[in-house]
Amino acid sequence: MSLIVQKFGGTSVGSIERIEQVAEKVAGFRADGHSIVVVVSAMSGETNRLIALAHEVQERPVAREMDVLISTGEQVTTALLSMALNKRGVKARSYNGSQVRILTDDAHTKARIREIDDARLHADLDQGYVIVVAGFQGVDENGNITTLGRGGSDTTAVALAAALKADECQIYTDVDGVYTTDPRVVDGARRLSHITFEEMLEMASMGSKVLQIRAVEFAGKYQVPLRVLHSVKDGPGTLITIEDDSKMETPTIAGIAFNRDEAKLTIEGVPDMPGVAYRILGPIGEANIEVDVIVQNVAHDKTTDFTFTVSRSELARAEEVLNKVASEINARKVTSDNKIAKVSVVGVGMRSHAGVASQMFAALAEEGINIQMITTSEIKISVIIEEKFLELAVRSLHSSFELEKEPLDENAA
Amino acid sequence: MSLIVQKFGGTSVGSIERIEQVAEKVAGFRADGHSIVVVVSAMSGETNRLIALAHEVQERPVAREMDVLISTGEQVTTALLSMALNKRGVKARSYNGSQVRILTDDAHTKARIREIDDARLHADLDQGYVIVVAGFQGVDENGNITTLGRGGSDTTAVALAAALKADECQIYTDVDGVYTTDPRVVDGARRLSHITFEEMLEMASMGSKVLQIRAVEFAGKYQVPLRVLHSVKDGPGTLITIEDDSKMETPTIAGIAFNRDEAKLTIEGVPDMPGVAYRILGPIGEANIEVDVIVQNVAHDKTTDFTFTVSRSELARAEEVLNKVASEINARKVTSDNKIAKVSVVGVGMRSHAGVASQMFAALAEEGINIQMITTSEIKISVIIEEKFLELAVRSLHSSFELEKEPLDENAA
Repeated sequence: MSLIVQKFGGTSVGSIERIEQVAEKVAGFRADGHSIVVVVSAMSGETNRLIALAHEVQERPVAREMDVLISTGEQVTTALLSMALNKRGVKARSYNGSQVRILTDDAHTKARIREIDDARLHADLDQGYVIVVAGFQGVDENGNITTLGRGGSDTTAVALAAALKADECQIYTDVDGVYTTDPRVVDGARRLSHITFEEMLEMASMGSKVLQIRAVEFAGKYQVPLRVLHSVKDGPGTLITIEDDSKMETPTIAGIAFNRDEAKLTIEGVPDMPGVAYRILGPIGEANIEVDVIVQNVAHDKTTDFTFTVSRSELARAEEVLNKVASEINARKVTSDNKIAKVSVVGVGMRSHAGVASQMFAALAEEGINIQMITTSEIKISVIIEEKFLELAVRSLHSSFELEKEPLDENAA
Repeated sequence: MSLIVQKFGGTSVGSIERIEQVAEKVAGFRADGHSIVVVVSAMSGETNRLIALAHEVQERPVAREMDVLISTGEQVTTALLSMALNKRGVKARSYNGSQVRILTDDAHTKARIREIDDARLHADLDQGYVIVVAGFQGVDENGNITTLGRGGSDTTAVALAAALKADECQIYTDVDGVYTTDPRVVDGARRLSHITFEEMLEMASMGSKVLQIRAVEFAGKYQVPLRVLHSVKDGPGTLITIEDDSKMETPTIAGIAFNRDEAKLTIEGVPDMPGVAYRILGPIGEANIEVDVIVQNVAHDKTTDFTFTVSRSELARAEEVLNKVASEINARKVTSDNKIAKVSVVGVGMRSHAGVASQMFAALAEEGINIQMITTSEIKISVIIEEKFLELAVRSLHSSFELEKEPLDENAA
């Protein structure tokens, strides 16, 4: 019998009816003899309702008080789910973040988990209780309530699974697994029976928003087997694990990820001298703007062009910062473009398979799609293209790498 | 400069607008240099909303989970009020019951406070923070969330005032003080500038529901000066204190209390023998039915009649229990009447003034009001009369004891 941590998000617990469904599912696992810890989010809409109340009072409330306020949302769900389990004759007890105790740093609204006290939970599990934990929250060493930021419930689940040395951490969502690409774009998109943490990270960061990145990183670091499942439909979902060397053959490419949410900024005619990248990106970082792709070309005439992408919503702010930088470092000019998209092929298998890049570029060339920027990592190749070609690019790559076909070694899964 | 604990109930914090009004009031006290601890209830309607959610899941949810659920209501208010204070440049920090920490026993939904840790609060007060505490809740020694029962926020405020040795505990309500009787019944009803704890207890238990009885008991026990004030209108309210022997003259009667919420049960022809009162009231107590007035007449023919009153809503249940008892002890029969009312004159002064009872009975007789039961304590005389005479009785007593007139020693207050 296994110890399983299960996480249900806001939509899955969005009404009493949905909470009853979750209780039914959990009761089933319990009846099979598994030990269960359930992590829940606030009922969908509740967090937004609370935030709206806060904003009626103050535009920028103190972060400490925001955490006190919104952490109540998950607590409500834990109590209701525990009741629904008790009703089914399943012993259950709810815990909020400070009761567990999930110790975090004191960075309110975006705290990081430091330590989890598992003694109390183990005692309850040993007595046959299902433990229902409020996701997304913790407590700092001074006893202040903290929250982990939106979507932090995934992180709570993984952290609990790591602390309890659970056999599996199951994330219930509104999709039945991780796909080779977005099924809305490619008809032949196929659910993966498994994927590695690294691949999942690359897929997730590209907008396949099935899981929170932090949760996947955490799971990878502590080697917690993570499974993505549908909260209502039955099915095996997708298991995210460390790379399994024993496998006969690793498929070259796991999937095609893409992201329309980026914009491109170029600062042209930058004097080619040491420290210039820092002088450009330092102020951007200080302004709390996250940068994704960064490309610097080789210099011509002692100047170079420096290009990077940011989230579209931050383009205006980034441009403002960059214009100031440009005049300080005597760059020629700043240009921007928000009609771009990023497309990536992701797969740990590409490490040992030459020619993935050339196959990718060939497929795009065949469709007449111009590549504006290229960036590569060990398990990913990303290109920036004009946004209007996005669907075409994804479909042609999906087909070029034959992702619609089940690989041989997946049949066992 | 004083240390003041202020409590605002659900209606006073029922909307963002009302919360802003409370913040304004608290900020005023802070500007005057006082140290302030504010205790708040859930926004009106919120507790009922949460209870309704629970009842959608289960008719009788486990008490532990009910506490986890409904304790979120007060926590939301603490955060919002802290924000509203911060907005006004007043440093404020919110605390829930387990953060304070308000240690209670483990009687979920009706826990009793055992101990309050005041170290953290004093540290914050010394730094000039207004402390906003969630009323109505605490934590047991195993870290489980508990609640004190409906209206428990008054108790939280008094307990905090006692622990912090506050100069005054102010309870803000929708009335501007304690009156000699209900102004809706007697036009000349007058606000008392002060009243003793004992008188307040007798007034409160009779349905003058300004304050929770437990809170008054607590305040009396720890000699916390308690003041009842209007949450919006300015005014001195009513100060509830220990008896002040230095006063020139204590007014004989503080007020006229009444209660329409009782019903009367009589068990007739009870064999007059030792232990019979216990055999009757034991089963009633076991059924968790609270008894108020109890009267046993002297025996005739070796049997006696035994009469007591209960809350009207429990009459049916009490009758059922009593019928069983009657057949067990060979009593003749059980009768009941729910068309009754209780009227009391209350005052510590009656201890030293003879003739209060006779003056009361004379006033009632003059109006032709028949007295069904009489019960007396050191500072109270209560009679049970037919319900239809209630208003007439209250008015005639108010006038007979000249309560509309300001007593001499009240001018100073």
